[in-house]
Amino acid sequence: MRKLVKQRSTKRGQPPGTLHHVGEIRPDGAGVTVFDYDEGSCSERTVEGPEACRALRDSPTVSWINVDGLHDVERVRGLGEAFGLHPLVMEDIVNTDQRPKLEEFEGYLYLAAKMLRWDRDQDELTIEQVSLVLGPKFVLSFQERPGDVFGPIRDRLRSAKGRIRRMGPDYLAYALLDAIVDGYFDVLEHLGDRIEHLEERLLSRPEPGVLHQLHRLKREALFIRKSVWPLREVVSGLQRTESELIGGPIEPYLRDLHDHTVQVIDTTETLRDLLGGMLETYLSSVSNRMNEVMKVLTIIATIFIPLTFIAGVYGMNFKDMPELGWHWAYPAVWLLMLLVAAGMVIYFRRRRWL
Amino acid sequence: MRKLVKQRSTKRGQPPGTLHHVGEIRPDGAGVTVFDYDEGSCSERTVEGPEACRALRDSPTVSWINVDGLHDVERVRGLGEAFGLHPLVMEDIVNTDQRPKLEEFEGYLYLAAKMLRWDRDQDELTIEQVSLVLGPKFVLSFQERPGDVFGPIRDRLRSAKGRIRRMGPDYLAYALLDAIVDGYFDVLEHLGDRIEHLEERLLSRPEPGVLHQLHRLKREALFIRKSVWPLREVVSGLQRTESELIGGPIEPYLRDLHDHTVQVIDTTETLRDLLGGMLETYLSSVSNRMNEVMKVLTIIATIFIPLTFIAGVYGMNFKDMPELGWHWAYPAVWLLMLLVAAGMVIYFRRRRWL
Amino acid sequence: MRKLVKQRSTKRGQPPGTLHHVGEIRPDGAGVTVFDYDEGSCSERTVEGPEACRALRDSPTVSWINVDGLHDVERVRGLGEAFGLHPLVMEDIVNTDQRPKLEEFEGYLYLAAKMLRWDRDQDELTIEQVSLVLGPKFVLSFQERPGDVFGPIRDRLRSAKGRIRRMGPDYLAYALLDAIVDGYFDVLEHLGDRIEHLEERLLSRPEPGVLHQLHRLKREALFIRKSVWPLREVVSGLQRTESELIGGPIEPYLRDLHDHTVQVIDTTETLRDLLGGMLETYLSSVSNRMNEVMKVLTIIATIFIPLTFIAGVYGMNFKDMPELGWHWAYPAVWLLMLLVAAGMVIYFRRRRWL
Amino acid sequence: MRKLVKQRSTKRGQPPGTLHHVGEIRPDGAGVTVFDYDEGSCSERTVEGPEACRALRDSPTVSWINVDGLHDVERVRGLGEAFGLHPLVMEDIVNTDQRPKLEEFEGYLYLAAKMLRWDRDQDELTIEQVSLVLGPKFVLSFQERPGDVFGPIRDRLRSAKGRIRRMGPDYLAYALLDAIVDGYFDVLEHLGDRIEHLEERLLSRPEPGVLHQLHRLKREALFIRKSVWPLREVVSGLQRTESELIGGPIEPYLRDLHDHTVQVIDTTETLRDLLGGMLETYLSSVSNRMNEVMKVLTIIATIFIPLTFIAGVYGMNFKDMPELGWHWAYPAVWLLMLLVAAGMVIYFRRRRWL
Amino acid sequence: MRKLVKQRSTKRGQPPGTLHHVGEIRPDGAGVTVFDYDEGSCSERTVEGPEACRALRDSPTVSWINVDGLHDVERVRGLGEAFGLHPLVMEDIVNTDQRPKLEEFEGYLYLAAKMLRWDRDQDELTIEQVSLVLGPKFVLSFQERPGDVFGPIRDRLRSAKGRIRRMGPDYLAYALLDAIVDGYFDVLEHLGDRIEHLEERLLSRPEPGVLHQLHRLKREALFIRKSVWPLREVVSGLQRTESELIGGPIEPYLRDLHDHTVQVIDTTETLRDLLGGMLETYLSSVSNRMNEVMKVLTIIATIFIPLTFIAGVYGMNFKDMPELGWHWAYPAVWLLMLLVAAGMVIYFRRRRWL
Repeated sequence: MRKLVKQRSTKRGQPPGTLHHVGEIRPDGAGVTVFDYDEGSCSERTVEGPEACRALRDSPTVSWINVDGLHDVERVRGLGEAFGLHPLVMEDIVNTDQRPKLEEFEGYLYLAAKMLRWDRDQDELTIEQVSLVLGPKFVLSFQERPGDVFGPIRDRLRSAKGRIRRMGPDYLAYALLDAIVDGYFDVLEHLGDRIEHLEERLLSRPEPGVLHQLHRLKREALFIRKSVWPLREVVSGLQRTESELIGGPIEPYLRDLHDHTVQVIDTTETLRDLLGGMLETYLSSVSNRMNEVMKVLTIIATIFIPLTFIAGVYGMNFKDMPELGWHWAYPAVWLLMLLVAAGMVIYFRRRRWL
Repeated sequence: MRKLVKQRSTKRGQPPGTLHHVGEIRPDGAGVTVFDYDEGSCSERTVEGPEACRALRDSPTVSWINVDGLHDVERVRGLGEAFGLHPLVMEDIVNTDQRPKLEEFEGYLYLAAKMLRWDRDQDELTIEQVSLVLGPKFVLSFQERPGDVFGPIRDRLRSAKGRIRRMGPDYLAYALLDAIVDGYFDVLEHLGDRIEHLEERLLSRPEPGVLHQLHRLKREALFIRKSVWPLREVVSGLQRTESELIGGPIEPYLRDLHDHTVQVIDTTETLRDLLGGMLETYLSSVSNRMNEVMKVLTIIATIFIPLTFIAGVYGMNFKDMPELGWHWAYPAVWLLMLLVAAGMVIYFRRRRWL
Repeated sequence: MRKLVKQRSTKRGQPPGTLHHVGEIRPDGAGVTVFDYDEGSCSERTVEGPEACRALRDSPTVSWINVDGLHDVERVRGLGEAFGLHPLVMEDIVNTDQRPKLEEFEGYLYLAAKMLRWDRDQDELTIEQVSLVLGPKFVLSFQERPGDVFGPIRDRLRSAKGRIRRMGPDYLAYALLDAIVDGYFDVLEHLGDRIEHLEERLLSRPEPGVLHQLHRLKREALFIRKSVWPLREVVSGLQRTESELIGGPIEPYLRDLHDHTVQVIDTTETLRDLLGGMLETYLSSVSNRMNEVMKVLTIIATIFIPLTFIAGVYGMNFKDMPELGWHWAYPAVWLLMLLVAAGMVIYFRRRRWL
Repeated sequence: MRKLVKQRSTKRGQPPGTLHHVGEIRPDGAGVTVFDYDEGSCSERTVEGPEACRALRDSPTVSWINVDGLHDVERVRGLGEAFGLHPLVMEDIVNTDQRPKLEEFEGYLYLAAKMLRWDRDQDELTIEQVSLVLGPKFVLSFQERPGDVFGPIRDRLRSAKGRIRRMGPDYLAYALLDAIVDGYFDVLEHLGDRIEHLEERLLSRPEPGVLHQLHRLKREALFIRKSVWPLREVVSGLQRTESELIGGPIEPYLRDLHDHTVQVIDTTETLRDLLGGMLETYLSSVSNRMNEVMKVLTIIATIFIPLTFIAGVYGMNFKDMPELGWHWAYPAVWLLMLLVAAGMVIYFRRRRWL
Repeated sequence: MRKLVKQRSTKRGQPPGTLHHVGEIRPDGAGVTVFDYDEGSCSERTVEGPEACRALRDSPTVSWINVDGLHDVERVRGLGEAFGLHPLVMEDIVNTDQRPKLEEFEGYLYLAAKMLRWDRDQDELTIEQVSLVLGPKFVLSFQERPGDVFGPIRDRLRSAKGRIRRMGPDYLAYALLDAIVDGYFDVLEHLGDRIEHLEERLLSRPEPGVLHQLHRLKREALFIRKSVWPLREVVSGLQRTESELIGGPIEPYLRDLHDHTVQVIDTTETLRDLLGGMLETYLSSVSNRMNEVMKVLTIIATIFIPLTFIAGVYGMNFKDMPELGWHWAYPAVWLLMLLVAAGMVIYFRRRRWL
């Protein structure tokens, strides 16, 4: 289960700008991949040292340098220094407990966002931090581990589908953010299905397991919310910025992205409202059922208790109990007991207790 | 039952501006109808290809082109290209999971809204997305399927009733929005009646069925709310816009429309407040009733248990039980038991338990 | 009981500006009364047609024309046209499901407010819509039915008490609004008394009837709130307006009126808070009492059940039960039973269950 | 107990500016006391008529005129007219159901605040309205009754302690407000102690009496809140005002006062949060205890019921019951019953019910 | 346990600017330590009188004067007068019940913040007030008692690690605040661990002890919240200030600090949300378990009650009870009882009560 608060304590006391990785170490398959493209061509390769990247910085083509694996702090530092990033930016990149944000620096923009995916194997929400650095002719992206939602963008770059090869690095950064937000819709769709499924179970057969499910879904929704709300500010910031790194033609795309983000927030809040209401409904439903059971059981007991009393009376051993000698006494007692039972049933029905 | 989150997953990874229909496919009776009018005349017809519409774009008369059925993506694309719409606008039109919004483009305004109706056959709220495009001499409207709340507007166009034929396309767009908001009042009226009906049942006879009803009504109110709040921003946007597509004479009408929207929001929130309070009242009411039942039953049991004990005592088989031989013992035990029972009843009454 | 949402459906589809009465028809005693006054004189009469009013519009004296009864749409139309009101204003006047608002038009201001009174016969809150039109030398007021909170203003006009006859129509409009807000204090006073009365009952004897009362009071408070919040905006609007219809000398009076409105809002919210807390207290109180009852009853049962078991044991018919033959067995069993009972009572007391 | 809504009904219908006392009449010891001071001297006396005060208005020394008792409307009117107060100000002074506020008039400022004290005899919160009028060389203060939190200020005036005698009337007004806010800390301290005391009782022994206490403390906190929130606006208003009655040197003092007010608000909200949480904890605690009791009792009953059944079986009088004749039958039945009881106890323990 | 409201009553009535210590007296190890450094050198010593500090005020090196122990009011006064602090600032320094705030004065800035630590011995949150005074060449820090989170800063000063020795006093003040905020992450990490631990216990074995834990954690979260929210305003104030004491190069560091503060707020609110949800889950979980127990027990009782009745019937002593003489009657009754019991079990299973 995800930790509520990531461990930062080893970081404490370091001077600001010290690179210290905060988060899980996920060592498998870390590496740096580069897409270098313009309208006419697109090359794709894997690089090792930061020196190879330095040349890309000033080349006239657009370069997308993607880094998987943040625990290798030295690689981030090498790359960061090659592209002239501020030490605090590098610190933020390797600290995966970062709030989504946008910061403008001389010559580049820094963006942090959360990439959400539903891990279908673990049936669990996966949250990964993605940092983007947008420069005049390059985009750097930093992810915690390999595997992301950017596959379709790579395909579009390779096949020159859509306008992505004709546009600058700002469009690429937009496309990456858009892919991340599209991923949110996926997660919400999955969450919505889970909620609907749970809702049906809850109305048809309210069981204790439902409660655990509800608790987990509420927690997931809380984490989604925490990722999405600050993202809206990031996108608004991109729309409002006067930086010349963001070109005019990209404006309607950012507006569209903003709409999508608001849509995600709206849906998250609606799902949270529904989850809140479901707990109430579940509790009422359980308590209704339980009350029904207890009522019926209590009524059964209540009917038999007076009958047992009557039987007890005629089980007494007094010498002088004239009824005991009467011939019709036994059937008469049965009759009496039937009358008492019937009277109680009728009374309970009249008062609508049965 | 409406899906909480519409399925978008097939859309994922497409470049922005790709037309991809999101929503249910409702194929019956799709088509394009055109009203072409000025103060003196009004023609009404059905067209097929987008070429027929291209001529309407620049004609001096006001043209209202209404499209039913959004799953036919090609038709929307043809029409959109004929009227020079931005690819993102076309994408929004066919994506029925859109938040109400207003966007200004060079030469036209784009509006999305939700049309609500109470489907009296299914006894269910129906939500349909309506997109409006307002140009200098035309209004395009896109609906998910035939059947809408615009009938009275068509009648007014045909009969030249009111000022609609004398005004421009901005008035027509206003009239369409006004008809949508009037539809909200209908839905709220119906919802209010349902709530009042439920309230009466709840106070007179609180049954479990009430709970399901409450849960459903809360859900409906949540969806209405989600449709109405952003609509207010749309109308405010229309009031504040500096676009020359919105003329001065229409201003008091927009103010009126804004009032109606706020009124709808107010009423929705009031209904939601009442629904919230009803759950509490219902639960208290149920628990009161149940407590009453349990109390009475427990009191009956409590009275008989000591009596049964007394009978049990004199059912013991000890040799030396002098009472058993006494002549008046049996009636005396009856008397004792009556006294015990009466004493308990009096005690319970005194403490107001009965 | 008041309808939650007033029926508007018959109005649907009418072009905007169509006069259509929404609300209950209250036919008794409709009519138009006129006060025509200046510092020196004051005449009071009843008029019939709108023609009689047209002359008042331009006379140098201040005229207050009060209309009772809105279902007579024609009378409102006649008067509106005589004073040059916009069709949307006339539509708002006859639509009693209006939110309090202030609108500025060329040559006059339009105000809508809610007049609250506690109907002591029905023991129910009465909400009536009042519309005011403030012009250069006249005030029009429209009410749903005869009977209002303006009696003292009429007396002050007749007797020239206070400064009302020396001031213009803006002061008259202020005085009318002030009388309406004073009426709110009356209603809140009554509501506060009811709440205090209920609070006492609730702490001394929590009965189910209290719940219905609480539900009703919450509903009333909700309606008061809905009437008062927008009124504050109306008064703020009057304070901020640059219209020359509102003179400088009236400013401290409007500030005072604003304070009163805020005071009403404050009190309403406090009462709502208290009502919310009372439900909690009531439920806890009921559940405490019920738990006490059930605990005592269960303890009684729990004490007797083992005793009954002992009696049952010695009621068995085995041949070889040596105790049955012992001489002191019967009193010994009694002693045993007393000891068991006493032991249980002591145990329960120790654990503070009794 | 304080009335929720003070009775204003006798005031209804009076023209604005009419002086009408709203609130309890507290006749004991009403009177007017005057402090007249400058850096060098300070005289203190009691005056009767307003004429004596008129001279003080224009004297070069600073005059503090304190009025105890507001029911004597004539005295307030006399004083108000002597100092040229607006009729609406005089109306507000005698209306003790006033919201704290600041109003600027030509030549003076009017402030209303609530003075809170914890009446240790009645163990109850006392709320008293204090009005201040700040003029160029005078401060008027109006209280509902003798006895206030201004004692230390009088001492500082008499002994020339601190800077109070060297500063102007604005500093005096600040000092009075500061004393009022200091009084809030006293009340909050007392309330905090009460809450802590209650918290301990609640965790150690949750009794029904706790509920009444909680209800009362919540009500007190609600009244404190209602007094404090608007006071912040008053102090902010003093900080922002451009009136020349508030001198520059007083600025850091007002900032300090503002901090204190925010601190009071913060503490009030924290206490309210804690009180809200305590109700939940109390209810859970009570319900836990009750459940424990019921569970143990039910378990006792459940163990004995099957045993009683076994005894009942061998109490039957059938002729042919072979077991009855067996020699070891009676001890065997005892053994059976012990086994059944032990089995049930073990089962309950395994399932952690005991 | 921390007091909810610190005792201020002894302070009441003092003129503003009077130094009066509010808070616990913690006398151990009070003292003043000085760091005096520039890029090339760093001296560290302990001083006694304020005279020694006066020289540091105007020296060209940066001086950090740290005071431990606020109950020694005279020392604070001496130091404050040496550095020309306003009396109200000195009053705020010794009043440990201060809200975090930033105030600008001529020549220096005053900051108050709360230093949080988790006392692992007492397993309790410790809140200590830290005041900072930032001047042109000095920083004063005031703490309630020895022991703080500034150890790493002292190390960095001694070893010239990072840029701290190259920067001015504004960077030092930033570093101190940053260390305080880093301490919050520590506390939140600990709190998060506690919450997760509790969550596990709550789902696996809901016991009453959990409730006390929850109540305590909620209280701690409330205190953290109260410390953090105003700190954000302090940091924003530092970012917005136009004071020349805050240099340009420090801007990205303040932005980073602001991000951390927002992150702390976010995490606090998330933890509070989770704690709120846990109470609900706990209560439902407890009530589920209890209901299960009661249901099973009641079912056992309900099955045996009719059987006991049957046994009671054949324990009656009537002369004429033909069944008693039948040969197979006894086994037949056993069969009857088994059938009744089996029938009830089947019925309960069918209705899913078992």
